[in-house]
Amino acid sequence: MSVSGNPRQARRLSYTVWNEFRHEKTDEAVREIYPAGMHQAIAGYLSQQEGLSVRTATLDEPEQGLSEEVLAETDVLTWWGHVAHEEVRDEIVDRVQARILEGMGLIVLHSGHYSKIFKRMMGTSCSLKWREAAEKERLWVINPHHPITRGLGRYIELPHTEMYGEPFDIPTPDKVIFISWFEGGEVFRSGCTWTRGKGKIFYFCPGHETFPIYHNPEILKVIENAVRWANFAGNAKVDLEAANVQPLETIES
Amino acid sequence: MSVSGNPRQARRLSYTVWNEFRHEKTDEAVREIYPAGMHQAIAGYLSQQEGLSVRTATLDEPEQGLSEEVLAETDVLTWWGHVAHEEVRDEIVDRVQARILEGMGLIVLHSGHYSKIFKRMMGTSCSLKWREAAEKERLWVINPHHPITRGLGRYIELPHTEMYGEPFDIPTPDKVIFISWFEGGEVFRSGCTWTRGKGKIFYFCPGHETFPIYHNPEILKVIENAVRWANFAGNAKVDLEAANVQPLETIES
Amino acid sequence: MSVSGNPRQARRLSYTVWNEFRHEKTDEAVREIYPAGMHQAIAGYLSQQEGLSVRTATLDEPEQGLSEEVLAETDVLTWWGHVAHEEVRDEIVDRVQARILEGMGLIVLHSGHYSKIFKRMMGTSCSLKWREAAEKERLWVINPHHPITRGLGRYIELPHTEMYGEPFDIPTPDKVIFISWFEGGEVFRSGCTWTRGKGKIFYFCPGHETFPIYHNPEILKVIENAVRWANFAGNAKVDLEAANVQPLETIES
Amino acid sequence: MSVSGNPRQARRLSYTVWNEFRHEKTDEAVREIYPAGMHQAIAGYLSQQEGLSVRTATLDEPEQGLSEEVLAETDVLTWWGHVAHEEVRDEIVDRVQARILEGMGLIVLHSGHYSKIFKRMMGTSCSLKWREAAEKERLWVINPHHPITRGLGRYIELPHTEMYGEPFDIPTPDKVIFISWFEGGEVFRSGCTWTRGKGKIFYFCPGHETFPIYHNPEILKVIENAVRWANFAGNAKVDLEAANVQPLETIES
Repeated sequence: MSVSGNPRQARRLSYTVWNEFRHEKTDEAVREIYPAGMHQAIAGYLSQQEGLSVRTATLDEPEQGLSEEVLAETDVLTWWGHVAHEEVRDEIVDRVQARILEGMGLIVLHSGHYSKIFKRMMGTSCSLKWREAAEKERLWVINPHHPITRGLGRYIELPHTEMYGEPFDIPTPDKVIFISWFEGGEVFRSGCTWTRGKGKIFYFCPGHETFPIYHNPEILKVIENAVRWANFAGNAKVDLEAANVQPLETIES
Repeated sequence: MSVSGNPRQARRLSYTVWNEFRHEKTDEAVREIYPAGMHQAIAGYLSQQEGLSVRTATLDEPEQGLSEEVLAETDVLTWWGHVAHEEVRDEIVDRVQARILEGMGLIVLHSGHYSKIFKRMMGTSCSLKWREAAEKERLWVINPHHPITRGLGRYIELPHTEMYGEPFDIPTPDKVIFISWFEGGEVFRSGCTWTRGKGKIFYFCPGHETFPIYHNPEILKVIENAVRWANFAGNAKVDLEAANVQPLETIES
Repeated sequence: MSVSGNPRQARRLSYTVWNEFRHEKTDEAVREIYPAGMHQAIAGYLSQQEGLSVRTATLDEPEQGLSEEVLAETDVLTWWGHVAHEEVRDEIVDRVQARILEGMGLIVLHSGHYSKIFKRMMGTSCSLKWREAAEKERLWVINPHHPITRGLGRYIELPHTEMYGEPFDIPTPDKVIFISWFEGGEVFRSGCTWTRGKGKIFYFCPGHETFPIYHNPEILKVIENAVRWANFAGNAKVDLEAANVQPLETIES
Repeated sequence: MSVSGNPRQARRLSYTVWNEFRHEKTDEAVREIYPAGMHQAIAGYLSQQEGLSVRTATLDEPEQGLSEEVLAETDVLTWWGHVAHEEVRDEIVDRVQARILEGMGLIVLHSGHYSKIFKRMMGTSCSLKWREAAEKERLWVINPHHPITRGLGRYIELPHTEMYGEPFDIPTPDKVIFISWFEGGEVFRSGCTWTRGKGKIFYFCPGHETFPIYHNPEILKVIENAVRWANFAGNAKVDLEAANVQPLETIES
């Protein structure tokens, strides 16, 4: 766990980049793109943006990087995982889910669609069709009213990506922000939002480990926008706890 | 497990009423209302309706009443549970979830809001405020376009119910069908629908065990409507499985 | 106006195919594809399906084909228009809107996205990007739980279509059923549903007049499915009229 | 039209309070509560809040208070109308709709549910049941994740209001924020959000002219929260205009 940004500054948005961090250690091609890990590429960019305090966390750290303390201090969390989804302990998933319901934002990246935490929050299989053919992807902005699209053009073009195709087994999103076109002939809802409890969730498709996706300024801009959007701005006083309550009116029936 | 209706008739909707069936055995007041169990009250009415084949299943039966065979033959399942939510084994919950995603309808009744299966499908805490004061409840039909409201009047009035109050920690429903007014001063989204995978889900609030709710013809009509609505009518050929697929277009990038 | 099917059979779904019917009269290429008009191609197929009573109506008929009588007898209406949107009189649009809110289903085809009635029901501009380049389109089924997708495969492929591209200025659909991939690089939400009042609405993209789209069995199957889905199945007794009502409880405040 | 706040300060949110302003002139009881008009009660509070530049506009001003200039400078507009809905000219409604689709926020208050602009944006009748009996209303916060609920408690209680009851003929809201309980026995979705084009819309029920609702600090807080929420924060560069576009990929079909 490392922290960048000035912790003494009050009210900075506290953002944690969680990464499985395995491909970067075992696969030479991935290491060349992300020598310090994907999380450092994302954290490097985000920590230079105004008002953000950025830390990273990875699977092989104590408590899989997500202690009660880290989560309590985290306003928004991004999640990248792939080969080690099953290693994430259920108690950690329980903990992350509880924090999301309390108001922590969650941004799930790429293969994180199959993570325990995303499946937990969605209630569905989160399955999709896929292909590794280094093909072209074009992410169309379909809801330009949404703050996640701020500063982008009509679409983002990625020359080489892994294809993720429909049907994507997810609950109806609150909003579909991006729909992707793939050179090989498929489409995909590549940016979707949901709310669960007091927490906001954003799934964002790009991020295959063998392409330099998290060095792309537009992709990083989307992540920055999503982090700001996912920060809790609701009612801290109204709780969602179960409670036995007294009547407010006289009961005569 | 008991089956009513003629199994040889093709294409009857196969409906299973699952009940925890504990209060009826241990609480004299509940037994007086439902001598054979709540599931028999529901099954008794539904089995006389056209085109339905009805069976019951309870927690203390082998495989908790929900074997692979029973689920494979079930088009729509209702769920009533309360004191024994934690006794339902995770493997049974996995099994029911898998069938829902394949297309089985799920109708969750009353205190089933806190069942493992409902929390699994929703991804939220499913918490709410509550009070046992035998107060009056009025369920308003707010979406008369919906087939679940067919044949009802503007509202259903129940003289004595347990109060369930907002905030109800659920994902945004596809449709809110009923909103309840409670004498003691609260409101509640008492009828809500969602889709998960190929399965439809309906939550319906009424059903406290100490009141004869499942003898009320309007409540039974709602359950009948919901069973018919929740029956799969979609595309059996398009699967939601993960798969590595070949391109449909030439990839040149 | 012509009626096919047996009007004496009770409870047949009464379906009206409305067509502007201008291109077919003025454009030789269109007339070759649809000698009797697009509406007859659609009506010809639908009138052979079980339980449907099909009539057609066109812009140049008295009352623009949509008298009070025709609408009162119509359960579901499809709408195809293009060059003469502005000729449809506002009083006819008012009349169609009123019937939709009462429960008539509306299916809007292709360039009907810019019709007065669709813009009226949506409240948005209903604008989109477009191109006539006879390119390939592939409509992906993204919600196989939905009855509109029944009997289809994973996608429908059309060798030559007009491109309609995002952003499509529509309200968030209740469900997105199809997303299209276009050879030229765009995507489009090509099948979407909404509910307005007691009426269901489906927008379906394919149907450019210079291609034989409404001779394609899969496209016709989608229209048939949509007609059945859009038929009112809700609560006829609960009205959506404004009314001054008496209290149900004593007011003491 | 009057402007408060310092116009030289860049990037202040520009908020316009539009009021029909008739009851206050003709009804003594209303004038006692709002001697300068309801708009001044709302503007008085909002103009003292940080970062807001507030102006008012009323029906009897030139161009009904909503010239192209005023609208171009308005980020968020609130609308209160009742007896003179039909006097609002269609060209003004067209103009307001166009600005909403471009990104202006719209907040519709109380009897504004029957305004031309709200019906235009919704596509439905916007009808509801109603009663003037000075009864108690309790607005429950049902989505505390939402910024409109910030700083509130579990509910807002109003001792005397006009009752608005379900069914409320509106499209499915993006989010239901408040549900009201009424002493006389009804419920109502009293705070709802939608998005249309690039614009956000909020309907908020309280505001009957014969009660001092817009002097209530909690109601004013909701309006302030809604104004901030409705301010455009999306993508200014991506347009929603119709356009004929060139292909991005080679078309060979």
